[in-house]
Amino acid sequence: MPDTADTQAFLTRAIAAGRGEVPADLVIRNARLFSVMDGSVTDTDIAIVGNRIVGTHAHYRGEREIDAGGRMVVPGFIDTHLHVESSLVTPLEFDRCVLPHGVTTAICDPHEIANVLGVEGIRYFLDASERMVMDLRVNLSSCVPATAFETAGARLEIGDLEPLRSHPQVIGLAEFMNFPGVLNRDPAVIAKLAAFQEGHIDGHAPLVTGLDLNGYLAARIRTDHEATTAQEAREKLAKGMSVLIREGSVSKDLEALAEILTPDTASFVCLCTDDRNPLDIAEEGHLDSMIRRLIARGARPQDAYRAASWSAAMAFGLRDRGLVAPGWRADLVLLDDLEECHVHSVIAAGRPVDDAAFAGRAPLAPVGLTSVHLRKISAEDFRVPADAANERAVIGVVPGRIITERLSRSLPVEAGAVAADPAQDVAKVAVVERHGRTGGIGRGFVSGFGLTRGAIASSVGHDSHNICVVGVDDAAMAIAVNRIADLQGGFVVADETGVTAELALPVAGLMSVEPFETVRHALEELRAAARALGCTLDEPFLQVAFLPLPVIPHLKITDKGMFDVDRFALLDS
Amino acid sequence: MPDTADTQAFLTRAIAAGRGEVPADLVIRNARLFSVMDGSVTDTDIAIVGNRIVGTHAHYRGEREIDAGGRMVVPGFIDTHLHVESSLVTPLEFDRCVLPHGVTTAICDPHEIANVLGVEGIRYFLDASERMVMDLRVNLSSCVPATAFETAGARLEIGDLEPLRSHPQVIGLAEFMNFPGVLNRDPAVIAKLAAFQEGHIDGHAPLVTGLDLNGYLAARIRTDHEATTAQEAREKLAKGMSVLIREGSVSKDLEALAEILTPDTASFVCLCTDDRNPLDIAEEGHLDSMIRRLIARGARPQDAYRAASWSAAMAFGLRDRGLVAPGWRADLVLLDDLEECHVHSVIAAGRPVDDAAFAGRAPLAPVGLTSVHLRKISAEDFRVPADAANERAVIGVVPGRIITERLSRSLPVEAGAVAADPAQDVAKVAVVERHGRTGGIGRGFVSGFGLTRGAIASSVGHDSHNICVVGVDDAAMAIAVNRIADLQGGFVVADETGVTAELALPVAGLMSVEPFETVRHALEELRAAARALGCTLDEPFLQVAFLPLPVIPHLKITDKGMFDVDRFALLDS
Repeated sequence: MPDTADTQAFLTRAIAAGRGEVPADLVIRNARLFSVMDGSVTDTDIAIVGNRIVGTHAHYRGEREIDAGGRMVVPGFIDTHLHVESSLVTPLEFDRCVLPHGVTTAICDPHEIANVLGVEGIRYFLDASERMVMDLRVNLSSCVPATAFETAGARLEIGDLEPLRSHPQVIGLAEFMNFPGVLNRDPAVIAKLAAFQEGHIDGHAPLVTGLDLNGYLAARIRTDHEATTAQEAREKLAKGMSVLIREGSVSKDLEALAEILTPDTASFVCLCTDDRNPLDIAEEGHLDSMIRRLIARGARPQDAYRAASWSAAMAFGLRDRGLVAPGWRADLVLLDDLEECHVHSVIAAGRPVDDAAFAGRAPLAPVGLTSVHLRKISAEDFRVPADAANERAVIGVVPGRIITERLSRSLPVEAGAVAADPAQDVAKVAVVERHGRTGGIGRGFVSGFGLTRGAIASSVGHDSHNICVVGVDDAAMAIAVNRIADLQGGFVVADETGVTAELALPVAGLMSVEPFETVRHALEELRAAARALGCTLDEPFLQVAFLPLPVIPHLKITDKGMFDVDRFALLDS
Repeated sequence: MPDTADTQAFLTRAIAAGRGEVPADLVIRNARLFSVMDGSVTDTDIAIVGNRIVGTHAHYRGEREIDAGGRMVVPGFIDTHLHVESSLVTPLEFDRCVLPHGVTTAICDPHEIANVLGVEGIRYFLDASERMVMDLRVNLSSCVPATAFETAGARLEIGDLEPLRSHPQVIGLAEFMNFPGVLNRDPAVIAKLAAFQEGHIDGHAPLVTGLDLNGYLAARIRTDHEATTAQEAREKLAKGMSVLIREGSVSKDLEALAEILTPDTASFVCLCTDDRNPLDIAEEGHLDSMIRRLIARGARPQDAYRAASWSAAMAFGLRDRGLVAPGWRADLVLLDDLEECHVHSVIAAGRPVDDAAFAGRAPLAPVGLTSVHLRKISAEDFRVPADAANERAVIGVVPGRIITERLSRSLPVEAGAVAADPAQDVAKVAVVERHGRTGGIGRGFVSGFGLTRGAIASSVGHDSHNICVVGVDDAAMAIAVNRIADLQGGFVVADETGVTAELALPVAGLMSVEPFETVRHALEELRAAARALGCTLDEPFLQVAFLPLPVIPHLKITDKGMFDVDRFALLDS
């Protein structure tokens, strides 16, 4: 509401409608309003003018009326941390996929596209946010690249971020994952933190504890989604953080953290998905599934719904939303069942969410359609020369976690090269630089995929999004990587004879241009193809995608080589 | 921290100290940290750099160390709504008087001085806030004058307020007491509301309920301190307001509202004093006494302390304070006793609160020293001519409340004039315009003071601060009013022979230039003098001061005459 006269006219109408003197724009009749404050239920109409609730606890007339049929109404859900890119679809498709699950606000970090395209990628999300039905809020990617030990497509310094700071959709600085840079007071890190002291700084501090956590928090970092145990979450809560319980497609912390959500903590706990793909969204849901599971594990409904709405709004300074009450933003979810969190329908900023709402959005041209720059790769590129060492460091994948273990295995040597060993469940892993900068390839080994033949490759490889490939066959690895280059990004499963399944992700090598239903179908085919190669993981592509993430303990791999996160150094350095 | 280089240097030091690598500026050793989240207690040191907490839950070394001796530590208290003027001392004396009670943040509305001096008065408070040890935040007085039915010294329109909106100490718009103007969509009111839609708008809606409350809230008014019954407070809570429990010197709502503070509502309830004089502060305390009484009435300590700190900070968007945790503002209260809220000592923005802290403040010259403009008043000015009416409307004072009753009494007629009647406990009341504008006098009757002779008068007369005088003797009333003019403002008790007690309030006719201890002593003498005239009220001057407040039901008086708040019209109109 930038124009003064418009705002005044809106207020005049809102007050008159709130008093019942004139019809509201929209009235939800016959609703049962559930209070996230105390769990009470009130039979009422809900009157809306523009994007604002103007009346509850009363009967109203409206230009348009929707009969809630006695359904429960709760505030719209706020996903406090996610990467839209992980949905593998464009922001406008994400909107269409996730908003019907009740998520009326999503706070995203365009970190993936920023690592490929820099500021152009962030601007793409800000442009999208102006077109979406959902309110997409943006935290500015704070750590691009995440570390100096990898090659990204872009580098964002404070000078790049400052011009975006005052954009109305920008909240603050996104997950500050370079926690070693904070603790060591790296000047470029300090410059970013200093520029956002008056705004919000989101955290990312896995396993950071004790004095290190204090030092990190002294920078005024306030929220964190990386706690994976209740003990870790409790320390963060006790030290004034709002803890974001995360349940993504690969990082699943809800089971471990459900116990921290109590009547006392409900104002300090939020929910987020971080990274979730459209197959999971279809099969399990989004925040709705988290609310359902939290209640099933003993949370009081008002605490689960408060965490999903008001607490999230407060934690991130979104002071216009989080309650169903007069004067608050008209983000509502109508439920068929409160405990099950079965979403019947959604109102976003006063607009019923339906096909017409999505169809009415202005289109947005995709960006970054030629972002994969790669020479032709051959099987020889994946050769690991044997040396004196008998034991090799091996990344231990943990199903459903992005934290890895550091293993050690004695591996077979064939023709002077160290080979994968399916008998020990050890595959080869490589990260191929694809931004057209170094052309470098990091090589290593990984255990836990169960592959007995072939390879799987992805141009999604957090956070620099080089191409990551896991395989037991160098030729299949080359086939998969070269196919990704042809597609300008994607997921590929290949065996020694060729590609067996694929999904093109040509938007910065991260997102499809197809509808989410198409992507969901392709993911099912990819899963089946991976299983056919022996893969035992539920989410092989997400687990591949996180192998290069050098800010998550303990052993990772980048285009520069295997990376010891605990020492924060390349393995051979 | 406006300077970038300074902020960066501060952050570098804060992080290093948080990690324990360098000594902190100040360490509170041997503390027991009480959690307003869950009531847990942790033995710990608390490390502070500058105005920020950098470490808890650990041992620290500091350049300066204070041994808490095992005392409990809680976050500094936030008074969410008060008028400094009601303390009868200047802002710097208020600081010295109230901060030692643990109130590290006070959100004031300089409404009284603004009614006398306009923007100059608000600027005086903003200038004071830059000198005080306590953090004084200012909400901009929204309704000056409060109504068109009185004569104030100034008028503030949106054009006067907008230049102050971005001042760093300004939160938003202060208590929007002109609720009829909101409900009737008065254009000048709408202009003010529209200009602050992105900021905070504080409410003031006594007895406003149902559809009217919805209309009021549709303007995005979010907080209210005028609920006087639990039922009224519950409706406001249910409709998304943060409810401020108020316990002033005259408006005392804690007894009635204590029951609304529960584990479920603790995040939505705040505390405030609104109007409290230094005698009460000395005898009872400030927010500390409210916390003590809430706990005594059954509130869990964590809920009472949460309402006094974190909930208040969230409700008013003060996102840097409200918890004792790394990264949060170093506002701390050390307690000798948690349940009794016995304050031992206070840290404000990292500075121990002691005589040296107050002595170090830059002085501030008082303003408005010649604000009382009055012709010589005689007994004849208070004559109420008799007419045909047998019954007279009489304001019924309710001890300890600012709401009044509308009574009707048959009064004696002497020499063609209606007289006060001590036998029925009916005194005369008059409001004398004193801004040099109209010289008008409103006359009427009031019951409940118990006066048997003499008069008491005050230049504090909410909100226009004309001179209000209550007496049973026209001559004594004239003596009292004329003495106030000589003093350029004050409280005076007089009988037929002359002045028997007085306190000069020459700063805009509202505040003393003396230390609060001197004012406290004068108030004791004034109380005794009023009692000697038969006065039965505990707080005669505060009850006088609220008789002219035409935004509080039910019957009031202004310089234009008796005012029916329910009809929102002068009595004879």
